[in-house]
Amino acid sequence: MENKDSSSGKSSHVTLYANDSSQPSRAVMIFCDLNGIKYEKKVINVFAGEQFSPEYKKLNPASQVPCLVDGDFVISESHTILKYLHATRNCADHWYPSDILKRTKIDEILDWHHTNLREGVHTYILRKIVYPMMGKETPEWELKDLLKKFKKSCKYLNTLLKSSDYLFGKEMTIADLAIFSEFIDYKLHPDFDVSSYPELQKWSERMQSVPEVVNACYTTLKGAEKNKLAKI
Amino acid sequence: MENKDSSSGKSSHVTLYANDSSQPSRAVMIFCDLNGIKYEKKVINVFAGEQFSPEYKKLNPASQVPCLVDGDFVISESHTILKYLHATRNCADHWYPSDILKRTKIDEILDWHHTNLREGVHTYILRKIVYPMMGKETPEWELKDLLKKFKKSCKYLNTLLKSSDYLFGKEMTIADLAIFSEFIDYKLHPDFDVSSYPELQKWSERMQSVPEVVNACYTTLKGAEKNKLAKI
Repeated sequence: MENKDSSSGKSSHVTLYANDSSQPSRAVMIFCDLNGIKYEKKVINVFAGEQFSPEYKKLNPASQVPCLVDGDFVISESHTILKYLHATRNCADHWYPSDILKRTKIDEILDWHHTNLREGVHTYILRKIVYPMMGKETPEWELKDLLKKFKKSCKYLNTLLKSSDYLFGKEMTIADLAIFSEFIDYKLHPDFDVSSYPELQKWSERMQSVPEVVNACYTTLKGAEKNKLAKI
Repeated sequence: MENKDSSSGKSSHVTLYANDSSQPSRAVMIFCDLNGIKYEKKVINVFAGEQFSPEYKKLNPASQVPCLVDGDFVISESHTILKYLHATRNCADHWYPSDILKRTKIDEILDWHHTNLREGVHTYILRKIVYPMMGKETPEWELKDLLKKFKKSCKYLNTLLKSSDYLFGKEMTIADLAIFSEFIDYKLHPDFDVSSYPELQKWSERMQSVPEVVNACYTTLKGAEKNKLAKI
C-alpha cells in the first residue's frame, strides 16, 4: 500500500479526543474498532464547551472534535484522520483504495459531505433545536434551504446506492463511515423524512447490521428510540 | 510518485467547467497553469444559474463549479480535482507531498477550509451582498458569527505563516492555492479587515507575485481596484 512513510512517528499509543454525539467522531471510532486500532478515548464535553478550553485549543485551534494524537503528531478533521490511520495502520485497501479513480470518487464525496449532507443534517439540527436555546433564531427561508439540502443529498446518495451495496461497491470504504455517521442523525428530528429513498434505507439497515457501527452511534439510536422517531 | 494507477483513463483533452468568480475554480486554474496542464475552459455562468441546468446537473448533481472531465471520468470538488491532477500529471512532489505527515497536514487544512475560511469569506459575501437581492435577509447574529469565523481563520493562518514562506514550508502546495483563492475575496467587502495579520499579508503579496495567480484572480483584483478596497 502506498502513502506510508518511514518518517511517520506512529506510536502504539493513540489518543482520540471525541464525543459520541459528534458525527465525525463516530466515523473515526467505527474505523478504529473495525480495524483493530486501539485508542485511548478522551471525551470532550462539547455541550459544556470543553472544546473551547485553552488546553484543547492548543491541540485543535478550530475547537472541534475529533482530534487524534499519535505520538507527537496531532491531527484534526475526521476525514483526514481516517486517511492518516489507513495509511499508517496496515488497513485493508478497500477502505481507501490505492486505485486513483476509486480513491478520487471517495475524496469527492468526502469533500461534498462538508457542504451538502452535513449542512442538511447537522446544521439543520443546530438551527432547529440548539441555537434557539441560545437566543439565536434562524429565519424560515434558511431552515427551508437546509432541509432542501438534506433532501437533495438523500436523492444523490439513493441514486449512488442503486448499483451497489455500499457507496462505492461491494465493500465498505471510509466514505460509508463518514456519510452514515452523519445521515443517521436524521432520526433525531421528525422533519427529516427518508421514505422516498429506499436504497438509502437499505444501506442504512446494512450499516446497522455491523455491531461496531451500532455501538458508536448508540447515543443517536437510543435518543431516536426514546423519542419514538426511529422509522427504519 | 505514488497514487498513480494504470487504470486511470487520463486523456490529453481535459475540460474544466469553471467561473472566474468561483474561488474553487480559480485554485484549479492556477494549478493547471503552473503545471503546464492544458485544458479547455467552459464557463458556467453561475450568476445566470447555468449550474442548475439539467445538462450541467448530469455532470455535477451538486450544481457547483468547478467540474473536471478527463476522458470519460468526471470529477467535482476542487480539492479532489487538485489531488487527482497531481496524481495523474507528473507534477512535482512539493504540491502534494508523498510524505504521509506532510500530506496529512495538507489534507487537514483543506478539510478545515470547507467549514472555516470558506464560511468566513464566501458565505459572508453571499449573505451580505447576494442574498438580500433575492429577498433573503440574514440575521445580525449570523453575520457576526461569520465575520468572527473570518477573523479566527485569519489568526490561525497568520500563526501558521510565522514560520515559513508558504503554508507548509518553502514551496507552494495545493493548500496555498485553495486557501489563497478564497482569502483574496476579502478585498470585495470593507467589513473584512486584515490589518492585524502581517504574516498573512506578506504571504498574500508573495502569492500575488506569481503571474498565474494574478491572472486567475483577475476578477476579484479588478473588482477590488474598482471599489478602491484593495489595501494590500
